[in-house]
Amino acid sequence: MKKSSVLALAEDLISRPSVTPEDAGCQDLMIGRLEALGFRVTRLAAGGVENFWAERGSSGPYLCFAGHTDVVPTGPLEAWHSDPFTPSIRDGMLYGRGAADMKGSLAAMIVAAEQFIARHPDHLGRLAFLITSDEEGIATHGTRHVVDWLRDQNTQIDWCVVGEPSSENRLGDVIKNGRRGSLNGRLTVQGVQGHVAYPDKADNPIHRAFRPLADLVDQQWDTGNQFFPPTRLQFSNIHAGTGANNVIPGQLSADFNFRFSTESTPESLQAGVHGLLDAAQIHYQIDWQLSGPPFFTPPGTLVAATQYALKKILGHPASLSTGGGTSDGRFIAQLGGQVVELGPINSTIHKLNECVAVADLEDLSRIYSEIMIHLLGSGRDD
Amino acid sequence: MKKSSVLALAEDLISRPSVTPEDAGCQDLMIGRLEALGFRVTRLAAGGVENFWAERGSSGPYLCFAGHTDVVPTGPLEAWHSDPFTPSIRDGMLYGRGAADMKGSLAAMIVAAEQFIARHPDHLGRLAFLITSDEEGIATHGTRHVVDWLRDQNTQIDWCVVGEPSSENRLGDVIKNGRRGSLNGRLTVQGVQGHVAYPDKADNPIHRAFRPLADLVDQQWDTGNQFFPPTRLQFSNIHAGTGANNVIPGQLSADFNFRFSTESTPESLQAGVHGLLDAAQIHYQIDWQLSGPPFFTPPGTLVAATQYALKKILGHPASLSTGGGTSDGRFIAQLGGQVVELGPINSTIHKLNECVAVADLEDLSRIYSEIMIHLLGSGRDD
Repeated sequence: MKKSSVLALAEDLISRPSVTPEDAGCQDLMIGRLEALGFRVTRLAAGGVENFWAERGSSGPYLCFAGHTDVVPTGPLEAWHSDPFTPSIRDGMLYGRGAADMKGSLAAMIVAAEQFIARHPDHLGRLAFLITSDEEGIATHGTRHVVDWLRDQNTQIDWCVVGEPSSENRLGDVIKNGRRGSLNGRLTVQGVQGHVAYPDKADNPIHRAFRPLADLVDQQWDTGNQFFPPTRLQFSNIHAGTGANNVIPGQLSADFNFRFSTESTPESLQAGVHGLLDAAQIHYQIDWQLSGPPFFTPPGTLVAATQYALKKILGHPASLSTGGGTSDGRFIAQLGGQVVELGPINSTIHKLNECVAVADLEDLSRIYSEIMIHLLGSGRDD
Repeated sequence: MKKSSVLALAEDLISRPSVTPEDAGCQDLMIGRLEALGFRVTRLAAGGVENFWAERGSSGPYLCFAGHTDVVPTGPLEAWHSDPFTPSIRDGMLYGRGAADMKGSLAAMIVAAEQFIARHPDHLGRLAFLITSDEEGIATHGTRHVVDWLRDQNTQIDWCVVGEPSSENRLGDVIKNGRRGSLNGRLTVQGVQGHVAYPDKADNPIHRAFRPLADLVDQQWDTGNQFFPPTRLQFSNIHAGTGANNVIPGQLSADFNFRFSTESTPESLQAGVHGLLDAAQIHYQIDWQLSGPPFFTPPGTLVAATQYALKKILGHPASLSTGGGTSDGRFIAQLGGQVVELGPINSTIHKLNECVAVADLEDLSRIYSEIMIHLLGSGRDD
């Protein structure tokens, strides 16, 4: 059987070892294919990170496909059944680092665009690509940088499909139409150091902290809504003590993180934390850092187009989800458009022996192509 | 004015830099003086620590004076107004490391014995010295070792005066007739590591720990008694976290210490802790370490003799206390006798510019001598 165009491109991308923030020539490969289709490409490298924006069409709404060429490190090579940067097919599965997250998606997008443009050379609106090599890293010079540039250009992305591996048990069973926000707090509780034999001359910050921090853990911040689970707080680190077991320490530090729904805001959560801690009459300070606001795309044009494509190609629609960690969707959503994430099954991402079903890549390319047709198709040759 | 015998010996001891576990010849000096008085001396070095036991007299009750020749480190030399190992007198105060803790006491004991024996060469009972160079350190090879040897010899110390600096505002205002016990626990709370975005797939040991540990802090373990304050628990260290702020850690560790009265036992405290933690249904383990049981000498022969001597020399009795940290008294008390601690004002111990009033040393020597007379005096030449 002839190797499909999607599989060939996915293999070519996997064979380029683009561990964050390296791009290793992946974007050159994609740009070559897009320029051949008539896309206008702007390279937007920043801070050692390769990015590009590509668009085709001169007016009307933007449909953007977004993704990243960088991959996470491989982990121990000897634990892979085949070299992570030498694509390998076994039992219908394509193995390699990035196969599912998200070089398979990138290949599917490019081939989808090729097939769409072959049939709709004079498509409506504008088809675009937003590609970065810094999604798996600190994500400062990647999508965020491109979004800033787009804002400066007054470019409004109307609809964006991010190729993140959203599927859980079978391709297309879940699409993400939002993500929770992430807010970090670094708490310091002040006490007075002393000797454990003379506690009245000290003020133990560990003792001071227990009940107020338990109250933070038990607090119900909101009850979520039909699209978001309730906001949750988790402590990740707590430290106090000199190491000696006869010394009461002078301070305690603790890190916590909120994953929050659209029912809360960074401001409401900060006010709630300060309210509880102030009531406990402890001496403390908190350094806050907003990792990302939540984003949410209510069912509408883009979700409908995606569901239509899924039903047409796979025979079933997806369920909508806002679960999981953050993604670059949070940056793109700030431009005000609709954003969904749709990609392969995510069960092997970031793990040893990452893989994706070859058949899923081909279906994914057809799904992406159907979305293009549904939103930008010229209507005369579908 | 001629330099007193007590001052001269204190200066000689201070000039020997015996930072734990070094003895630096202090014990040789003391042994020479005691052998000249007819004491039989047994050197009991162990584990790099110098110790000795000396006794005089052939039958009857033992009155033992106990102390240590080792001193804590000096801290920054430039912050001392005079060299810590060059005894210096300014405004009636003798300065030097160990002046108050407890070379001054050692000098007072030796001179007291000399004066006592000069007048009571055929004293009743037996006068003894138990001297170590490992009181300020880990205290494994010091008094504990000598006490084990005494137990093997079937030697019962009836009365023991430890020269620890017990005085607070003026010489002899406080004697310690007991000390609280000290029990250490190292707690580990088990959880399941995970990602902060997926708390349902993890089990956060920080969250699990807060309320049970707060309950430990708030628990009333006992209400003390007329001689002991209530038992107190203090946490000294608490640690959990990988450093990353998006990871729920897999375990939490915390160190705590009980200072406990004679109303509790190590067993009752351990049972209480396990009862509270078991009720919280957390997964945990505790490594227990008994640093020292409490000891207590109720008012009786030794306390009465000490109060008599204080009233005779200073004109006032002392108040009795069981406060503060632990001391080698905990080991000596295990032999079953009466133990009190009486020594100089403790306000400068372990600090820069440690000092003791020269007049206090001379009074302390007279007080020790009075105790000897009161308990062992032959009665014919007092």
